[in-house]
Amino acid sequence: MGVTAGQSVEIDALLTFGEQALVAVGVPDGDARLTARILLEADLRGVESHGFAHLVDFYVRGVQGERINRRPDIRVVSDAPAAATIDGDRGLGFVVGHRAMTLAIEKARATGVGVVSVGNSTHYGAGASYAMQALEHDMIGVSMTTGGRLMVPPGGKAMAVGTNVISLAAPAPRGFPYVLDMATTVVAAGKLEIAARHGRPIPEGWAVDGAGAPVTDPTRLRQGAMLLPLGGTVATSSYKGFGLALMVDVLCGALSGFVTSAEMEPGRAAHGFAALRIEAFQPLAGFLDRMGRMIDAIKRTPTEEGVTSIRIPGEVEHALASQRRAEGSVPLHPRILEGFRAAAEELSVPYPFQ
Amino acid sequence: MGVTAGQSVEIDALLTFGEQALVAVGVPDGDARLTARILLEADLRGVESHGFAHLVDFYVRGVQGERINRRPDIRVVSDAPAAATIDGDRGLGFVVGHRAMTLAIEKARATGVGVVSVGNSTHYGAGASYAMQALEHDMIGVSMTTGGRLMVPPGGKAMAVGTNVISLAAPAPRGFPYVLDMATTVVAAGKLEIAARHGRPIPEGWAVDGAGAPVTDPTRLRQGAMLLPLGGTVATSSYKGFGLALMVDVLCGALSGFVTSAEMEPGRAAHGFAALRIEAFQPLAGFLDRMGRMIDAIKRTPTEEGVTSIRIPGEVEHALASQRRAEGSVPLHPRILEGFRAAAEELSVPYPFQ
Repeated sequence: MGVTAGQSVEIDALLTFGEQALVAVGVPDGDARLTARILLEADLRGVESHGFAHLVDFYVRGVQGERINRRPDIRVVSDAPAAATIDGDRGLGFVVGHRAMTLAIEKARATGVGVVSVGNSTHYGAGASYAMQALEHDMIGVSMTTGGRLMVPPGGKAMAVGTNVISLAAPAPRGFPYVLDMATTVVAAGKLEIAARHGRPIPEGWAVDGAGAPVTDPTRLRQGAMLLPLGGTVATSSYKGFGLALMVDVLCGALSGFVTSAEMEPGRAAHGFAALRIEAFQPLAGFLDRMGRMIDAIKRTPTEEGVTSIRIPGEVEHALASQRRAEGSVPLHPRILEGFRAAAEELSVPYPFQ
Repeated sequence: MGVTAGQSVEIDALLTFGEQALVAVGVPDGDARLTARILLEADLRGVESHGFAHLVDFYVRGVQGERINRRPDIRVVSDAPAAATIDGDRGLGFVVGHRAMTLAIEKARATGVGVVSVGNSTHYGAGASYAMQALEHDMIGVSMTTGGRLMVPPGGKAMAVGTNVISLAAPAPRGFPYVLDMATTVVAAGKLEIAARHGRPIPEGWAVDGAGAPVTDPTRLRQGAMLLPLGGTVATSSYKGFGLALMVDVLCGALSGFVTSAEMEPGRAAHGFAALRIEAFQPLAGFLDRMGRMIDAIKRTPTEEGVTSIRIPGEVEHALASQRRAEGSVPLHPRILEGFRAAAEELSVPYPFQ
């Protein structure tokens, strides 16, 4: 996450532009609308690394170049009461992910739990988008995905594993849901892209070169710089971030029978989703009571100078999204809007901004 | 993990001693045998922080002091085809955990997935013990537990959350299963106990005092020293380790309707277990093929000088356990054996070591 002081862009115009750009390259209306809505959610929540910034370079170009299948035949290839495997047929990850999480929720309604492993998909944006689908059903949602092969394993001198992502969303009674959404590297690759866009160096501890020396120039990613696993160094347990990345590969790449991030082609992805119906475990009111008491206890923790209160995962993002929804706009970096203007001309769709 | 060059102790003698010590304080035979077996597994795997080292101080004393219920009425309080909640009635965590994971496996056999949330339990040793129960059933196993409230949250000046643990075990075809078993702090509290036992300082980056200064004296834990979340500092994403700890609390403390680590009394615990039947997702052979290819690809990664190959989670522990099983013994620190001698006398059980 990183909040840009970019140009203010109207939400409705952004949704329309995103939908029209995708439809212009042959994506069906409903899929284009769904994709634009999920991208917008990321920008509303301040997750600018996974929002509209990549509309053109990842998704429009992906469809044009046939790396993404615009009209996929998304199939359930294995089905049990609480488990399923889906073949995404190289469709837009947003469409595949939303379909798979919807199936996990249906299964959880019937049996208490649904787990869906997904192979042969593509980039699905922010993991939280799918985990959060569960919230309105009074369920806990889990969403995982493989990421680009940018992580150097502990003891290694080359990138070997993806920046695999874990997300979990759970209802809570203090005005915002609990939402974790994290890459298993110290930071997601998108953080380096944002730093590069703003011309800022990155802190030591995020990336190293092949000799193990710290890299602070964000433009060197994929050009000699590799991302460290969460934990950073072996002395501070980088094998845990590495182990979590492999856990995601076990549940997504291997369990779906597709391929793990260690071997995956760029642009492809495997995902994993789970939904847990809270009332299959205990009454919802009891769960919410425990969540509220947990949040209250953590909020009572004495804080360092300059810190007003301990932040619960998802709290800051929820507040930002509420504010931006009320304002009706999100900020986008001028360079992103330049890209939109060129794409609008190329695709013959209206450019509706400023 | 940390390999001791301690005194060599025969496996059979250790199992018998553990079982007899627990039976002497009123634990039923079968429960005592199960507990001793799970403790031994940790010592075989080199996880000396979660093995026999705590037999007397945690478990025998816990039962004597009635903090642990020697004859619990472990009850399924909620039941759905793929989900259940168990009340552990303050029983030994080993007994409660084994029962709950067995139920998760039964459910996975029927529906593809089983998830069991457990409240009102106590310390269950190493998380991997339960995740690994799934392996012989060709299932993936997940085990989570709350830990002691020793984690300082990002921006905080006091301990607020447990050293909550995540473990996942999955079959693999290269001679060892994939087994992740990690506290969500940079290191588990047991690592500081081991360092203290050996009179060694700990590295900077594991613990801080209330002013945020690094602590390298392991004896200061619970006396001014607090454990950092995985990630270490805010700049290197300590909110991720904190977020993972809360994820465990959501799935264990809150989902079971018990209490989260932020509010839990010392010595109590909530757990969460899951089993995923691989063939509900795809043929086992396909899964194993993907796992093998993942391991091979990672093993081909060029390594730093002095590193022979990248280690897969669970690989080192499996090799050590095989070696120790073949030798028929495990090493224990002389101070642990001194404690056993005193306990043997107190409990009137034979002291079978050297």
